[in-house]
Amino acid sequence: RGGETIAYFRKAGKRGQARQIVEGMLRADAVELAMEYPVTTEILFNTPEYNDILARFYDDWAERLAALPGEVVVLCEGDPFFYGSFMHLYTRLQGRVELDVIPGITGMTGCWNATGVAITWGDDVMTVLMATLPEADLVHHMGQSEALVIMKTGRNLPKVRRALASAGRLDAAWLVERGTMPQQRVMKLADLQDNDTPYFAVVLVHGHGRRPEIAE
Amino acid sequence: RGGETIAYFRKAGKRGQARQIVEGMLRADAVELAMEYPVTTEILFNTPEYNDILARFYDDWAERLAALPGEVVVLCEGDPFFYGSFMHLYTRLQGRVELDVIPGITGMTGCWNATGVAITWGDDVMTVLMATLPEADLVHHMGQSEALVIMKTGRNLPKVRRALASAGRLDAAWLVERGTMPQQRVMKLADLQDNDTPYFAVVLVHGHGRRPEIAE
Repeated sequence: RGGETIAYFRKAGKRGQARQIVEGMLRADAVELAMEYPVTTEILFNTPEYNDILARFYDDWAERLAALPGEVVVLCEGDPFFYGSFMHLYTRLQGRVELDVIPGITGMTGCWNATGVAITWGDDVMTVLMATLPEADLVHHMGQSEALVIMKTGRNLPKVRRALASAGRLDAAWLVERGTMPQQRVMKLADLQDNDTPYFAVVLVHGHGRRPEIAE
Repeated sequence: RGGETIAYFRKAGKRGQARQIVEGMLRADAVELAMEYPVTTEILFNTPEYNDILARFYDDWAERLAALPGEVVVLCEGDPFFYGSFMHLYTRLQGRVELDVIPGITGMTGCWNATGVAITWGDDVMTVLMATLPEADLVHHMGQSEALVIMKTGRNLPKVRRALASAGRLDAAWLVERGTMPQQRVMKLADLQDNDTPYFAVVLVHGHGRRPEIAE
């Protein structure tokens, strides 16, 4: 069989976050395949055109990976089954090749660890929200659960801030930027300056131990 | 400094799940401290008596661990900051000793991995619920999110089943028993027989890719 192949997604023109994490850990003879996303911001999300281009991208890479000799390792950030692009390859390769998915530490876990406070205990309810959701949906969900994790913030951060304020949770919210990475930054979201655009940021609201297990 | 100390919680009379996971991985000269829970089912949860006993238990162990020479490793299952008992030691030891918390792969991540299906993608909302919550609360939350994780099932499983049925989610629910452990079992919750009492079970409902990213 051939040498080991290491494949990973990345934005065109970037080194790739997943690839950077394994820097210095690969075999010298490993063959690397950078699966570069065909679209970024030129085409609007949610359009049939966008969906078609992405579907063809995953189709093509599924074919190429399935045709390779030997083992292929697909690097993922976080957990492959938790909001991961890998699942689009997985559903296309299932039943065609042997697949072994290794669970990972999710990005949100690294982010709440960085705050030094437990995200949930007791009977806390925790809800994970994508910042791409409509503002009214965000406000609704933010009022239902003790603990909140808000991902895919980026340009949606002003909307997330407004939604948290509407739900009365802004003062309890933390921003973790570049969680677990070099230059990690942890701050209260309310302290963020308007002109400061965070990069790779997760917003967290900690639970408070619904029906506390201990008297303190 | 002294030899390394390994501490872990366990139920009285049991070997301890965290300890079993590291079997064969400890230094020969490691000193082991089993922190045995003082109460199990003799006293009702939610009573002041229960809270007092547990608080004293954590107080005592925090004192003992703080007084030890050298490094102490506290073994945790899953992630220490996600519904973990460790946080009761952490809050007591903060500012007194140097603490380093290592993020972990949560049990729910291992469980959804075992189903072979992504738990969330696209803009899915995911909610984590403790089965100890009142049935009406469970029904309410189960109707709000695409993806569900229900933990602390045990004796509450009949209530979880009723709540899922009320929320119209029972047919989509999976039961993962002893997730990631020997004798792991994965099945549709609706197929569980009434006389079959699962052990260490997590109930999952997968998301369906709200606003799908790909056309399939």
